[in-house]
Amino acid sequence: MGNLEKSGGSIEYEYVLPADIEKRSFEIISEEFARRGVCLDPELAPVIKRVIHTTADFDYAGSLCFSPDALERARRAIANGACIVTDTRMAQAGINKRALAKFGGEVYNFIADEDVAALARERGTTRSAVCMDKAAALRKPLIFAIGNAPTALIRLCELIREGRIRPELIIGVPVGFVNVVYAKELVMETEVPHIVARGRKGGSNVAAAICNAILYTME
Amino acid sequence: MGNLEKSGGSIEYEYVLPADIEKRSFEIISEEFARRGVCLDPELAPVIKRVIHTTADFDYAGSLCFSPDALERARRAIANGACIVTDTRMAQAGINKRALAKFGGEVYNFIADEDVAALARERGTTRSAVCMDKAAALRKPLIFAIGNAPTALIRLCELIREGRIRPELIIGVPVGFVNVVYAKELVMETEVPHIVARGRKGGSNVAAAICNAILYTME
Repeated sequence: MGNLEKSGGSIEYEYVLPADIEKRSFEIISEEFARRGVCLDPELAPVIKRVIHTTADFDYAGSLCFSPDALERARRAIANGACIVTDTRMAQAGINKRALAKFGGEVYNFIADEDVAALARERGTTRSAVCMDKAAALRKPLIFAIGNAPTALIRLCELIREGRIRPELIIGVPVGFVNVVYAKELVMETEVPHIVARGRKGGSNVAAAICNAILYTME
Repeated sequence: MGNLEKSGGSIEYEYVLPADIEKRSFEIISEEFARRGVCLDPELAPVIKRVIHTTADFDYAGSLCFSPDALERARRAIANGACIVTDTRMAQAGINKRALAKFGGEVYNFIADEDVAALARERGTTRSAVCMDKAAALRKPLIFAIGNAPTALIRLCELIREGRIRPELIIGVPVGFVNVVYAKELVMETEVPHIVARGRKGGSNVAAAICNAILYTME
């Protein structure tokens, strides 16, 4: 690899079999961590590396925060048939639904539901926030993967405080500029197992990547 | 806003009406550019800012490259009914299909098609690359929004060289570590109008954000 690698990846073509591209990507990520002298907790490494694989952004090694046993609890929930609720169709599209279905789970997203839009107008809140109420009414074990809307996270924390829901895990990785940092800190103050990308960064792609990383450690 | 803003966004809750959250986000992005002494080309600013809105990553101000008149040509193509081809369902999910439909366009994604999987196995290539062949056979004006697979971009450049397709615009923003930088440089060497995020960063969310930014300048 040439000099350009330092400025964001090799410019030379590297022959890699289609089936090996992902493996090679993870090798490069591991090499870069080694070069930086960074060791990752072996339990958390698959999640951290998959987020970096999805974003090419090593900042996540500094911003992802895991509550104790978050992954172990998530795996147990999924093994028991937990479903995943997302705040966007993009996150829903990105989650490996086949891998989840092996354990009986499915992915819910209510953002385009008409009752959600009507209730959001009535309450003067966002549709994303109302989606959390709709999820709470499901009364089943749920993992929340929130990659877009801080208002969803804030509403989720209210529902938790009111005892109306007890998520198995919150993946709190919304992205943006308005109340995003605040919403994530709020999640970290709860007793609920969580994975949070502190700061402004995150996204639906990051939310999906974290779900998939957990699923792939169960294979 | 407090000190924490410097380390990635205000930790204080800011009351913003649901309908104004996006507007306020763009204001914050503009404020941060002003503070850095960065002026954006007014033609390109809506795209650059929407990508940062989607990623909270100001690096894109340094990495997004636009061929001359890329946006003007994209708008003309869309106004004439051009369709968008994506390499992932996530990008497809993220594009505002209602805004595109106003001009008669739709979003295609072939990644889950059985003929694509079969042909990829036969050729020893990726499904993403075969999707480009399938798109070339459409024989209609197309914009390519590639946020994931460098192999799709490389195949697209081959098809262009062979005179088998002439895209209206290539949005070349795959993310990752294997041949991603190479594939983007390849696009920039073509005569085809393009928007490229140089380096490793990009993503399906970035591809969708660029499509939406263009569409919203047409409203």
